[in-house]
Amino acid sequence: MAISKKIEKFMEQASWIRRMFEEGVRLRQEFGEDKVFDLSLGNPVMEPPPEVMDALSAVAQDRTPGRHRYMANAGLEEVRAAVAQALSPECKVELGSNDIIMICGAAGGLNITLKTLLDPGDEVIVFAPYFVEYFFYADNHGGQAVVVPTREDFTLDIDALKQAINPKTKAVIINSPNNPTGVVYSRESLQDLAAALREKSAELGQPIYLISDDPYKKIAFDGVETPNICEFYDNSIYITSHSKDLALPGERIGYVAVHPQCAAAREVMAGLIFSNRVLGFVNAPALFQRVVKDVQNVTIDVEPYRRRRDLIYKELTRIGYEVVKPQGAFYFFPKSPLADEMEFIPLLTARKVLVVPGRGFGAPGYFRISYCFPDRVIEGALIGLAEAFREATK
Amino acid sequence: MAISKKIEKFMEQASWIRRMFEEGVRLRQEFGEDKVFDLSLGNPVMEPPPEVMDALSAVAQDRTPGRHRYMANAGLEEVRAAVAQALSPECKVELGSNDIIMICGAAGGLNITLKTLLDPGDEVIVFAPYFVEYFFYADNHGGQAVVVPTREDFTLDIDALKQAINPKTKAVIINSPNNPTGVVYSRESLQDLAAALREKSAELGQPIYLISDDPYKKIAFDGVETPNICEFYDNSIYITSHSKDLALPGERIGYVAVHPQCAAAREVMAGLIFSNRVLGFVNAPALFQRVVKDVQNVTIDVEPYRRRRDLIYKELTRIGYEVVKPQGAFYFFPKSPLADEMEFIPLLTARKVLVVPGRGFGAPGYFRISYCFPDRVIEGALIGLAEAFREATK
Repeated sequence: MAISKKIEKFMEQASWIRRMFEEGVRLRQEFGEDKVFDLSLGNPVMEPPPEVMDALSAVAQDRTPGRHRYMANAGLEEVRAAVAQALSPECKVELGSNDIIMICGAAGGLNITLKTLLDPGDEVIVFAPYFVEYFFYADNHGGQAVVVPTREDFTLDIDALKQAINPKTKAVIINSPNNPTGVVYSRESLQDLAAALREKSAELGQPIYLISDDPYKKIAFDGVETPNICEFYDNSIYITSHSKDLALPGERIGYVAVHPQCAAAREVMAGLIFSNRVLGFVNAPALFQRVVKDVQNVTIDVEPYRRRRDLIYKELTRIGYEVVKPQGAFYFFPKSPLADEMEFIPLLTARKVLVVPGRGFGAPGYFRISYCFPDRVIEGALIGLAEAFREATK
Repeated sequence: MAISKKIEKFMEQASWIRRMFEEGVRLRQEFGEDKVFDLSLGNPVMEPPPEVMDALSAVAQDRTPGRHRYMANAGLEEVRAAVAQALSPECKVELGSNDIIMICGAAGGLNITLKTLLDPGDEVIVFAPYFVEYFFYADNHGGQAVVVPTREDFTLDIDALKQAINPKTKAVIINSPNNPTGVVYSRESLQDLAAALREKSAELGQPIYLISDDPYKKIAFDGVETPNICEFYDNSIYITSHSKDLALPGERIGYVAVHPQCAAAREVMAGLIFSNRVLGFVNAPALFQRVVKDVQNVTIDVEPYRRRRDLIYKELTRIGYEVVKPQGAFYFFPKSPLADEMEFIPLLTARKVLVVPGRGFGAPGYFRISYCFPDRVIEGALIGLAEAFREATK
């Protein structure tokens, strides 16, 4: 093999995803696009809010010289200042433009953050069920993701976390509202998390950074609070994107905020800027930096998501699925009616319903439903979900 | 220190660049923007061609649903097809959309390519004077850049290359027109390079990939030919961006083309797509993919560059500098009149002329001039360059 052995191995391990994707393509070809109910991808069908489209039109028409040039690797000063100003209130700390770096989406932000922090063999704690990319991101930079389970209701298990922390622990990643469970971590649980990390940092004599990967932060329902970790913990690095809240996933625009009182805050920010450069991002796309500058307080209408969440939750529980009611994001993570979800999923596929197995998130026995799709897809899928459940439990 | 030791070390090594940058800021503050002649950065002041701005306006006005969504990690099918069609003639091989991946600039393309190819300890050969970022890119992915000198006129030294190739050699990177020398590799020299790589590949029983990092490809003068490596060598990976030819460096848009007859071509492309995903690029920005789709045959007007090249070359040689006449890009790489360029550069700085020391490119005793600036800056700089030369040689 001519390519990297590790990449070859990773691609082989991920081949079930490709097979699933190919199965979806086959089903579409055989039965037609409108007969397949694909709940496997987190690719929102929402369009960006009108304010974003207006900002895009204005920015694209701007003929001021220099609009498309290189800039400082951290991003445009005026954009970072606008982000800092909009973000400060929820952080309960005054952020300045120098605490912000504009990035190519949260995935880019996580990579530059882990490159900045990790020495070879350093550990990054993630909670299961987890976003599988965290493993690759840690590995990219010589580190290793270590899994800590959550409780039965997918809330944080602080005791399990404390047991996992050791001298190699450099950071903890959380994601709330959560992909794949839709769970939102409460103020109390984040306070407990912060207290545990402070205690362990003191015990080990080294900072443990808390990385909050929060692109779903504004997708929350029923008035539930989604606090910013910066309120509770100084060694916080807050990462978000506008992929979900402004429905711009294809444009790769987001930011990292470093708590101004974070350990080695100046070095962390310098490292993020350096890593943004040498990993090849160089800077977040100039045009969409300008677009998001004036729409920091805009969010897509989450009402259609809430409505679908309510519909699906009512139906899933009526059918008999065991499922935690999500408070945010656009996912459900039901328990498979068969202990091995890989035996249950073919019953769904036979009804042209596509979902993601829980083992993809480190949680065998579950599966993920994404509901960022039109009602037609969801209604069709619910019929298949009901039939498959009956067949599995008859 | 809380951050990665390696990042800390790299940033310390690069601190002279920051000091130089800070010196520039200080000079501007003290004497005013128009009294400083900064030839240190490769940030073109050219605006994108009108065709690009028209395409941008049209794409930004497009309200078709789905324009800003996620897509396949390789990029939009129709954009890759347009790139393949425009690129095929110069490659002398028929490329299809599956041979192209859209990327976040050439820096992103180089990173995903090296991640795809390199096993720990693998070597990547670069020619001095080199673009310093190659070292970081190779190191990012566990590899190591190995330097091979060029000849006195900065053309390829094929014998030196052959001596450097060993079983750990995975790839060779070239860059033509070259940063920092402006030299263009001729058809004959690329044929010799290809023959040498074929010979060494056969001898070692393993493919040696030739990576062509060519964002300056269309910035060439006097009708000089800038052949595409795909014409000469099957194991070619061609990387370019629209940062220079369409003056869009801030927008991070480019592509990688893999020669269809390349060793393990299918695995290489799959690896590029996988690496684009897990390194956090995910996909090249959607909007600028659409913008560049229909302007693949457009290039900025290179005439202002040629005019400045002629002016500067005439003046530098008149003053007495030893310098190779560049045939492309927008750089000169003159010999320092003092053996140690770090002793000469202060004589320039004293005249408010900023350049980059040759050691930044692995070539002590030289310095780099960038001329992608307005005539005012260049004319002012030439006065300082003349005075400093006289002082150094009196």
